[in-house]
Amino acid sequence: MQSFNPPLRTLMGPGPSDVHPRVLAAMARPTIGHLDPAFVGMMDEVKALLQYVFQTRNTLTMPVSAPGSAGMETCFVNLTEPGDKVVVCVNGVFGGRMKENVLRVGGIPVVVENAWGEPVDPNRLEDTLKSHADAKIVAFVHAETSTGARSDAKTLVEIAHRHDCLAIVDAVTSLGGIPVKVDEWGIDAIYSGSQKCLSCAPGLSPVSFNERAIDKIKRRSSPVPSWFLDLTLVMGYWGGSGKRTYHHTAPVNALYGLHEALIMLKEEGLENAWTRHQQNYLALRAGVESLGLEFFVREESRLPQLNTITVPSDVDEARVRQLLLADYNLEIGAGLGSLAGRIFRVGLMGQTSNMKNVLLFVGAFRESIMRSTLAPARNGTTVAKPRA
Amino acid sequence: MQSFNPPLRTLMGPGPSDVHPRVLAAMARPTIGHLDPAFVGMMDEVKALLQYVFQTRNTLTMPVSAPGSAGMETCFVNLTEPGDKVVVCVNGVFGGRMKENVLRVGGIPVVVENAWGEPVDPNRLEDTLKSHADAKIVAFVHAETSTGARSDAKTLVEIAHRHDCLAIVDAVTSLGGIPVKVDEWGIDAIYSGSQKCLSCAPGLSPVSFNERAIDKIKRRSSPVPSWFLDLTLVMGYWGGSGKRTYHHTAPVNALYGLHEALIMLKEEGLENAWTRHQQNYLALRAGVESLGLEFFVREESRLPQLNTITVPSDVDEARVRQLLLADYNLEIGAGLGSLAGRIFRVGLMGQTSNMKNVLLFVGAFRESIMRSTLAPARNGTTVAKPRA
Repeated sequence: MQSFNPPLRTLMGPGPSDVHPRVLAAMARPTIGHLDPAFVGMMDEVKALLQYVFQTRNTLTMPVSAPGSAGMETCFVNLTEPGDKVVVCVNGVFGGRMKENVLRVGGIPVVVENAWGEPVDPNRLEDTLKSHADAKIVAFVHAETSTGARSDAKTLVEIAHRHDCLAIVDAVTSLGGIPVKVDEWGIDAIYSGSQKCLSCAPGLSPVSFNERAIDKIKRRSSPVPSWFLDLTLVMGYWGGSGKRTYHHTAPVNALYGLHEALIMLKEEGLENAWTRHQQNYLALRAGVESLGLEFFVREESRLPQLNTITVPSDVDEARVRQLLLADYNLEIGAGLGSLAGRIFRVGLMGQTSNMKNVLLFVGAFRESIMRSTLAPARNGTTVAKPRA
Repeated sequence: MQSFNPPLRTLMGPGPSDVHPRVLAAMARPTIGHLDPAFVGMMDEVKALLQYVFQTRNTLTMPVSAPGSAGMETCFVNLTEPGDKVVVCVNGVFGGRMKENVLRVGGIPVVVENAWGEPVDPNRLEDTLKSHADAKIVAFVHAETSTGARSDAKTLVEIAHRHDCLAIVDAVTSLGGIPVKVDEWGIDAIYSGSQKCLSCAPGLSPVSFNERAIDKIKRRSSPVPSWFLDLTLVMGYWGGSGKRTYHHTAPVNALYGLHEALIMLKEEGLENAWTRHQQNYLALRAGVESLGLEFFVREESRLPQLNTITVPSDVDEARVRQLLLADYNLEIGAGLGSLAGRIFRVGLMGQTSNMKNVLLFVGAFRESIMRSTLAPARNGTTVAKPRA
């Protein structure tokens, strides 16, 4: 066995997105101790930068030392007690995962079903809350990575609060790509991932909790069922700016990378990053439409950073992705769950969102679609039909 | 805020240990997708390398995508069902954490208390199991990082099996530094950390489960209370060598680092690494004894990779560590819990275990001890007494 030298891909899938050389270089800096005063100073900067990106003053804002799924679990294990009724809005894979999280900690999920590809319907949430007055939490995905649909987070949080519920928001794919305003919208608990619009390597999950959420955690009558994700313990390490209490060994080099990625986002400016994501989506849309292809999500609910394109019925979807990877070193994503084979998922997240990639994608996609179009063969099966 | 440039430390604490430039460079290679065929190929190599390091043929051998504490939790959330009696041997901080893990998942911990600094007493374990015939699991720490004591893993596992219990072993600090023979000793579930004797950056936790352990997981009557750490799901991603099912986004660049660190360990040879750790401990011992200082742990139970030195009563322990860090960029560890202020913890783990570091430490420690020795002052308080 030898050292691993990865191929040089362009990452236009649902994440990870392209990681800038500055971030890669940061991760290769010498490891220091997780209680080293120099490291603790950097932790404070990471916190401040995350507060900026989340648009919040929440003290409890930090990266969980594991991928986005662990950020999701951090919210549910800390905020849900056995028997708590949690209204979960499901319009894709990740809403379904939220429901699973509620079950694992002994909560009672009440599901608001929405069609995949549609945003969460605020009226349906409101109706559900009216008939479940004892619900304690509302949870939804802001940007459904599995479908490319954007929900109206501000409105959904308002409805949750009107019914005395805390709001847990999945911002894995939204943070850094479209507006996420934790304080202005009153989001109580939120989690994201490092590898989407923040364009860091995967492995960290930024989270933020407001005072209402912390208050619910403090009033728990049962212990948090996870030691690793117990915020009352983690706070001792990431908490105030005073003495740090050892909880677990932080992923030092991964945090160097997140620090650098956040510095780059701050340099660009959050609003500028949102604008960039929108503009490159418009360019991608023009290209996709010029190929005669259709978006899976209606215009007004589309995520600029995660574009889902309907697979034409005569196209071999898997072959398109294989050709893109093999001939252009270009990764795009497949559909998940019930959308497997039905959509392509094309990410324009973080560093990936630039005009060079839009042009590469449109050109390479056009070629690959042509080479993967099926025509009925004489014996009744289908074969790839090359189109010049 | 600016890019973070860490100081260049020598890491002789309880972890992280020094990370080799080859491993740092690996982590900076271009990020690719977690389902990319090239990445999946590398995952297979990581599995094979971990099987070598754990000395096992267990199929379920892989790195958990989070630090060692999550590896510990992976063992307990999957193997313990509510009401299960778990005998936990406690001889330091990490045994105590195991007990906490049992409680969090609704298990009933039965604690075998041992003095801190002593190995786990096999007779005491046997007696406890005799009076708790319904116990299902025995858990212990092979190498207690908080005290520097090594327990006799082989014997403890034998006792567990004699009483029809599964054995969960914490090998966070032992793996790669002293023999850990999963198959030969019959260990049922084991976890370690990337940042100790494997000398990778912190953030990953190699684990291995044998068929008996998997069988207990499959026979669970309640779902695993963690979605993120549920092995029945994680196995779909890390499992056989066939198709990979998406579970969570793997920490791609961190895994590049682990792959490289394991390649380096394979190149050296596991037995050679064990010998190196032993030899450098002997050199350190000579140096420490030449300073008139004493080890906290009895000779026969000492870990060569984690040396605990008793703080002389007239020495300001915190000042010694501060001087080492400030004047020599040398990190050592403090005592934890009841050993705070009473011991120094000096790691010679992985890449840190070399003669250059032994000499640096002995010289710098000598100076720093002298500059931190307290003498009674006239007013009854103590002040640092400089010794030439």
